Amino acid sequence: MTAERKLRMGMVGGGPGAFIGPVHRIAAELDGKIELVAGAFSQSAERSREAGESYKIDPDRAYANYQEMLEAERRRHDAIDFVAIVTPNHLHLPVAEAALKAGFPVMSDKPATASYAEALTLEKAVARSGLPYGLTHTYAGYPLVREAREICASGALGKIRKIAVEYLQGWLSQPIENTGQKQATWRSDPALSGQGGCIGDIGTHAFHLMEYVTGLQVTELNATLLSVVASRRVDDDCTALLRLDNGANGVLMTSQIAAGEGNGLRLRVYGEAGSLDWKQEDPNRLRLKWQHGPEEIRHAGGSYLGHSARSATRLPGGHPEGYLEAFAVLYREFADGIEAWKAGQSAPLPLTLPGIAAGVRGMRFIDRAIESSQRKCWIEF
Amino acid sequence: MTAERKLRMGMVGGGPGAFIGPVHRIAAELDGKIELVAGAFSQSAERSREAGESYKIDPDRAYANYQEMLEAERRRHDAIDFVAIVTPNHLHLPVAEAALKAGFPVMSDKPATASYAEALTLEKAVARSGLPYGLTHTYAGYPLVREAREICASGALGKIRKIAVEYLQGWLSQPIENTGQKQATWRSDPALSGQGGCIGDIGTHAFHLMEYVTGLQVTELNATLLSVVASRRVDDDCTALLRLDNGANGVLMTSQIAAGEGNGLRLRVYGEAGSLDWKQEDPNRLRLKWQHGPEEIRHAGGSYLGHSARSATRLPGGHPEGYLEAFAVLYREFADGIEAWKAGQSAPLPLTLPGIAAGVRGMRFIDRAIESSQRKCWIEF
Amino acid sequence: MTAERKLRMGMVGGGPGAFIGPVHRIAAELDGKIELVAGAFSQSAERSREAGESYKIDPDRAYANYQEMLEAERRRHDAIDFVAIVTPNHLHLPVAEAALKAGFPVMSDKPATASYAEALTLEKAVARSGLPYGLTHTYAGYPLVREAREICASGALGKIRKIAVEYLQGWLSQPIENTGQKQATWRSDPALSGQGGCIGDIGTHAFHLMEYVTGLQVTELNATLLSVVASRRVDDDCTALLRLDNGANGVLMTSQIAAGEGNGLRLRVYGEAGSLDWKQEDPNRLRLKWQHGPEEIRHAGGSYLGHSARSATRLPGGHPEGYLEAFAVLYREFADGIEAWKAGQSAPLPLTLPGIAAGVRGMRFIDRAIESSQRKCWIEF
Amino acid sequence: MTAERKLRMGMVGGGPGAFIGPVHRIAAELDGKIELVAGAFSQSAERSREAGESYKIDPDRAYANYQEMLEAERRRHDAIDFVAIVTPNHLHLPVAEAALKAGFPVMSDKPATASYAEALTLEKAVARSGLPYGLTHTYAGYPLVREAREICASGALGKIRKIAVEYLQGWLSQPIENTGQKQATWRSDPALSGQGGCIGDIGTHAFHLMEYVTGLQVTELNATLLSVVASRRVDDDCTALLRLDNGANGVLMTSQIAAGEGNGLRLRVYGEAGSLDWKQEDPNRLRLKWQHGPEEIRHAGGSYLGHSARSATRLPGGHPEGYLEAFAVLYREFADGIEAWKAGQSAPLPLTLPGIAAGVRGMRFIDRAIESSQRKCWIEF
Repeated sequence: MTAERKLRMGMVGGGPGAFIGPVHRIAAELDGKIELVAGAFSQSAERSREAGESYKIDPDRAYANYQEMLEAERRRHDAIDFVAIVTPNHLHLPVAEAALKAGFPVMSDKPATASYAEALTLEKAVARSGLPYGLTHTYAGYPLVREAREICASGALGKIRKIAVEYLQGWLSQPIENTGQKQATWRSDPALSGQGGCIGDIGTHAFHLMEYVTGLQVTELNATLLSVVASRRVDDDCTALLRLDNGANGVLMTSQIAAGEGNGLRLRVYGEAGSLDWKQEDPNRLRLKWQHGPEEIRHAGGSYLGHSARSATRLPGGHPEGYLEAFAVLYREFADGIEAWKAGQSAPLPLTLPGIAAGVRGMRFIDRAIESSQRKCWIEF
Repeated sequence: MTAERKLRMGMVGGGPGAFIGPVHRIAAELDGKIELVAGAFSQSAERSREAGESYKIDPDRAYANYQEMLEAERRRHDAIDFVAIVTPNHLHLPVAEAALKAGFPVMSDKPATASYAEALTLEKAVARSGLPYGLTHTYAGYPLVREAREICASGALGKIRKIAVEYLQGWLSQPIENTGQKQATWRSDPALSGQGGCIGDIGTHAFHLMEYVTGLQVTELNATLLSVVASRRVDDDCTALLRLDNGANGVLMTSQIAAGEGNGLRLRVYGEAGSLDWKQEDPNRLRLKWQHGPEEIRHAGGSYLGHSARSATRLPGGHPEGYLEAFAVLYREFADGIEAWKAGQSAPLPLTLPGIAAGVRGMRFIDRAIESSQRKCWIEF
Repeated sequence: MTAERKLRMGMVGGGPGAFIGPVHRIAAELDGKIELVAGAFSQSAERSREAGESYKIDPDRAYANYQEMLEAERRRHDAIDFVAIVTPNHLHLPVAEAALKAGFPVMSDKPATASYAEALTLEKAVARSGLPYGLTHTYAGYPLVREAREICASGALGKIRKIAVEYLQGWLSQPIENTGQKQATWRSDPALSGQGGCIGDIGTHAFHLMEYVTGLQVTELNATLLSVVASRRVDDDCTALLRLDNGANGVLMTSQIAAGEGNGLRLRVYGEAGSLDWKQEDPNRLRLKWQHGPEEIRHAGGSYLGHSARSATRLPGGHPEGYLEAFAVLYREFADGIEAWKAGQSAPLPLTLPGIAAGVRGMRFIDRAIESSQRKCWIEF
Repeated sequence: MTAERKLRMGMVGGGPGAFIGPVHRIAAELDGKIELVAGAFSQSAERSREAGESYKIDPDRAYANYQEMLEAERRRHDAIDFVAIVTPNHLHLPVAEAALKAGFPVMSDKPATASYAEALTLEKAVARSGLPYGLTHTYAGYPLVREAREICASGALGKIRKIAVEYLQGWLSQPIENTGQKQATWRSDPALSGQGGCIGDIGTHAFHLMEYVTGLQVTELNATLLSVVASRRVDDDCTALLRLDNGANGVLMTSQIAAGEGNGLRLRVYGEAGSLDWKQEDPNRLRLKWQHGPEEIRHAGGSYLGHSARSATRLPGGHPEGYLEAFAVLYREFADGIEAWKAGQSAPLPLTLPGIAAGVRGMRFIDRAIESSQRKCWIEF
């Protein structure tokens, strides 16, 4: 199934100074299935127009706000095919609801919403709309994360007994939100990012990766959230002991004050027969350590990899693909899903693409971790 | 200087089954400055049309051959801005000559031509045309290759005394050209690839990387070229001892029968004070080993990196970029060069972008290595 | 201060099938300051004699039990200079008490005793005796652990805010204690190993390493101890959230059911300015990640290392030293301490050698971790 | 076969300031089969006596010169069992000849002699004596070098087609021999070290490792030897292209001016089916890269390793052993050989222990490399 034309994307957010907007643009367009044609890139009409210029889109389609975009695009014969949401978290819900209501499928940056209650609201809105909804848990797009998922599902590791997932960054070691740094500022403001700081910004990625790869679900947790930088209004360091639904135990460690760390997401899964180890900063290798045999390194591009890893790879072995390519895998699957939905299929999105269910679990995780930390004890998920 | 619209690219080659065509498309479009709008993707009109469909371009602009494309595009008001050449090597010269003659700047896959004599011809054609000409020595686009180049130029390593460059692949370990594998077939046919096999396909990359990073030039060499797979018509393994123009010595080792290797390009440069070490398969780290201090690892995205590395990076530290992103750096520089040229600047292409001079040296290297190997002795470059 | 002769060591434990006995023998003798001359190697006189033969010592000095050894050696003109204790944990206290009472300094394998109460008893016995007492927390002997300790003390990392220490092994993934495997059997029997399983066997190493390197002390903890292998009588997996006395938080993760892991002890310390990372399986490198500069790798043997690392190294850089050499550093310091004590110095043991204070803290850690796990909450240390 | 007592070793060389003397002492004694009891440690009687003290041996057995040692020891009832030679190279032959003549087996540091002619002389002397003669090519003692050897012999890699061996050090980057540094001074003086500098000091190790692991022999070579430091009297950088007896080609690269390198010995062997990669600075891992399967890492201590690797390992997986332990493996094999020879066996030394044949080939390699470099062409081995 190949469409005759590229799908047209309208973006909300991603204006000047944004990090993730250009990333979505590159990722969406990378596989040649999507093109950015419209956007409400900023809450300032002027800055939205400037962003439109920088993206080299038709000036008429750089809108002053998302409401205007949805309204205008609905009436065009060459309307956008879907909306990408890349705003700060507090806008995820209203934009998604409006887009769905206007009949546009939604691809949203994570977390799905700013609170668990909002996530439940959005879940209903998605169900009601019957439209495709994707959530860019980027790391799910890496080929070797897909391989790890297949390995866990295959039972090759034996019963999973222990999981260690960590996500360590150092960029918030100092209170740079007080200096006006854009990324730090909104992420440290509960009104914009939601209750969770580190736990929401990157903890949810770690949580998602763990459940995505293992197929297990957290049932209990005991979390400690800290604001290590004294003036900070949200948490910047979190550790959680976990219990999984098969009886396994887990540790989730995440921090944004781990000075010297870049983007240190790592997942280790221990089964009865062996373990796997994947690191985002070295994404094209997957280590398998067997209890009774040599360590094994699977490389992206290897002919021996499973279907899901191979289909997420564009280049031969030894040609590194990275973060943008992983991101683009999600957009490619989303594009395929839209084509399928247009063709009338009922469950159009591939199971490998995170959706609203993952979004609800992620928001639940934030909610539960905060409560556990306040009560200083184990609680049910 | 930001153009109001994207530059329009016409591609020659890159049809069904090609590896490098889609790579050029992705790389060219990645930074939002270029879009593929036309092509003569195959020597079969039918297959060119199919390729055009897969690229989702206007069917009218999927041409039967490059002559037709150049002719037709010249007459369009929305003509292509430049031609990308991604054919087998033997077509590089005729296509480039025709494109330049038609007034189109050229971005060519490497090697520049199929022989040294052709390279000299092309050099003259480029000079005559006054048009921008870029050569996609991909590895020159990696941020940390840029950093390594700055370090060498700064003198921080002290006088350079020894260079070790290697480029090891294993994919031609068996005579797969006899099975019809497309990539292997044309690369192993001297009529299509030129005299050099491994030395031309990847040896030139290693050679270029070495001269690009160190700023030194080879003056003498002693090479041994082998066809390890008995039935192979070109070399598949090459080692060369080198003498550089500052008196340093070097070793260049390249092979396509190094079973188990993926795309193992690595450069080590030893100066009096310390050394640097860069590996393409781990491209976001640059190791510096100092004679009298700790080893240092510079990471892509580091705030401490020099200008040239920082400007070749799109993401914060810890978010891996890879081969496509490096490739895209070259296209971005080429796009900037075309804009500058359109604006009337005389030396439009940035010095960091490989051009025809690098192309001539690369072809000279193949020529000299073959002669040295035949004569089994040291010869002048 | 160089003695004219080697110090003479008498060993208790370490008979046939033992892992750690021969390790102590090699480590003790490695630097040419100590020789094994006597032993009560087994609780069977016959097996002790056999062990004496394998160690090639005088048959008269292979004793039937430790009481006999202490008695006989006291009367010899060439008596042993100290006793090394390498028995299962439950014998550490009685043997140490007897040896000290007989006037012999003691070098003991860890943990110091089988319970916290015993540790307090031993602490008093050591104080009363005025004799040197050393505890072989092996990992404290690695040169780069010493370097890490100096770095923390220097303040170079800034205020320490977060610590992650982990010690993962896989060898008890299955209930091999039921098959008669000697090492597993006594370690899984509370009567021989004490209350703690994994937490005592390797958790204490991780705990000690953390306090040894950072100079900080745990003040509160929240631990979860599990027996993942159902039939196991002691814990085999433990995770503890920690609070340190400077306000830093920590995570200690240790397991013996982490299938595929060998001896994965790793310490990461995060300060305000940067962090350090040391791995026992790659012991000759210490990684320093700076918030505002390149990553740094210090190598054993580097001329730039601090005094304590350099004095713990025997070979030039690039010549790997390992576990036995680290162990031998402790014995060398112990030998120096005995010489100093013989020469009448009052505080003979170097501060870098773990002693009874470390032993008491280790036993306290086991005790507190078990209580926290039972109560499922944070408790004071 | 276990002797009742330790074998007694007499050492020639290894006095104050020596690097390798104490290494031999530690290695010889490590496995509890040998003890150092006598020595002629220096050409100065006074310094020999001092060395004897530092080794804590009987002062009567610290001899003024090797002749005196051989003479005196022959008459003792508790005479030494063998002689270890750790002098500069020019003394290897005379000491070995004298020792053999006096009836003592010899364990010699490498290279066997100071010239190829001398090596032939020594080869005859060894044959004539019928005594065990061992050569400490240290790296042959690493467990995973043994594993690599077994793998090559098994044919698992398929026909070997390409070998890359390198040995890079940086410690002679500057002319430190002019400052009186002891190690540099004798190694840079042809009268003491023989004709070869770097090629003899470390090139022979690389050469031996390659032939030892692959079981192949060099038949032709084309070498370039340089004195990069202008004032140096011997070579300090060497590269050789090689042809092996099965038709494979090889590259040997060695340098002592590779600033920043420690002790960078690395061997890669490429067969038709896959390749192996071993690095001395990471000695407990052996990488196997298969053409059609995942990369494999074999770890020292793994239960899946072959007999020869397992028997060369003392500790469980994850407990690093290093250079001294590898050295000690050779001494252990030598001790076993002496016991077997005493017991009347005719071919007492294990084939895994390098002997005079390896010594002769090593000296031949130096001789041939120098000639090839002078003639600037390929020559027969």
